[in-house]
Amino acid sequence: MNFLEKRILQDGIVKDGNVLKVDSFLNHQLDIRLFEQIGEEFKRIFKDKKVNKILTIEASGIGLACIAAAKFDVPVVFAKKTQSINVDGELYSAEVESFTHGTKNNVIVAKRFLTPEDRVLIIDDFLANGCALKGLIKITEDAGATVEGIGIAIEKGFQPGGDIIRKMGYDLCSIAIIEEMNSETGEIIFRKREEK
Amino acid sequence: MNFLEKRILQDGIVKDGNVLKVDSFLNHQLDIRLFEQIGEEFKRIFKDKKVNKILTIEASGIGLACIAAAKFDVPVVFAKKTQSINVDGELYSAEVESFTHGTKNNVIVAKRFLTPEDRVLIIDDFLANGCALKGLIKITEDAGATVEGIGIAIEKGFQPGGDIIRKMGYDLCSIAIIEEMNSETGEIIFRKREEK
Repeated sequence: MNFLEKRILQDGIVKDGNVLKVDSFLNHQLDIRLFEQIGEEFKRIFKDKKVNKILTIEASGIGLACIAAAKFDVPVVFAKKTQSINVDGELYSAEVESFTHGTKNNVIVAKRFLTPEDRVLIIDDFLANGCALKGLIKITEDAGATVEGIGIAIEKGFQPGGDIIRKMGYDLCSIAIIEEMNSETGEIIFRKREEK
Repeated sequence: MNFLEKRILQDGIVKDGNVLKVDSFLNHQLDIRLFEQIGEEFKRIFKDKKVNKILTIEASGIGLACIAAAKFDVPVVFAKKTQSINVDGELYSAEVESFTHGTKNNVIVAKRFLTPEDRVLIIDDFLANGCALKGLIKITEDAGATVEGIGIAIEKGFQPGGDIIRKMGYDLCSIAIIEEMNSETGEIIFRKREEK
């Protein structure tokens, strides 16, 4: 069992409706020492990729993306959920449905921050149905940039996102993949991860 | 002129309506090397404070807060803009108006992540009218926690937020304070910062 799986067992709470609460360390309160470990692990996994930019989506992906970016020594671009008056010019956009919030958002990236020369590592904290990830992939490819890899902290393996994206041929690696969880017993079973 | 002021002159763009676009390095594309410098500067400025937690607000404050938190070796808590089904239990909340977006949001922090023992450094990327900051101060004090200091990357000194919060007695330090800017000429004049 790896460091993140141990932490999920220790502090994660399984709730009704396939909700895993990890807000004490991953997406409300952020354990930066844990983020450093996750960032190091992404660096190890994707060490052979020529990554020059990390792409994520607001809000909870940003912290992990920034700590990982410090390991790769590259900038971060985050896709924004609404069009702000501060983002003008041409935009790449994708529609993203949030599993957690039950809402649809248009996410946008200013065109000047993604170019055909960019070799992108996509990072997010969670992968469930894969909607956010598909939006980030679409934006990267609309820009003519290359998806070098996808690094996820926690994947819900019993939801379809991960399998769909792997079948599309992307190099997706999740540090913890939850195979099953039970809100009555609180039990969490992880998928055995292929060594990389 | 310090490193951040230089960068603002180099890459910031003054737009109509008192908008300073710094989205190429601060709040859409994030220059992580610059963030490391800002984090080091916060660490230097607040070295005598016993900070055990960094508080920020989604979305664009999160990256800077996380990189700074790595310097302080403390966790980050970020105030969330909407109540998600993943945040239950008791909440601290404050109403925050966004200068950039022209919207009002309720921001929330789960009560279990801020306690009377917490000594909080509040960090944000921008300070203009001070609404977001006042919300974070209110939440910290509602929790009975202590505001040890407030670190801001860019303050618009010609808007009232900074002066109001300093008059309230808080130890607020902005790395770059814009005294004047002109959207016709593109000129930006910085306030001379008191040495700390």
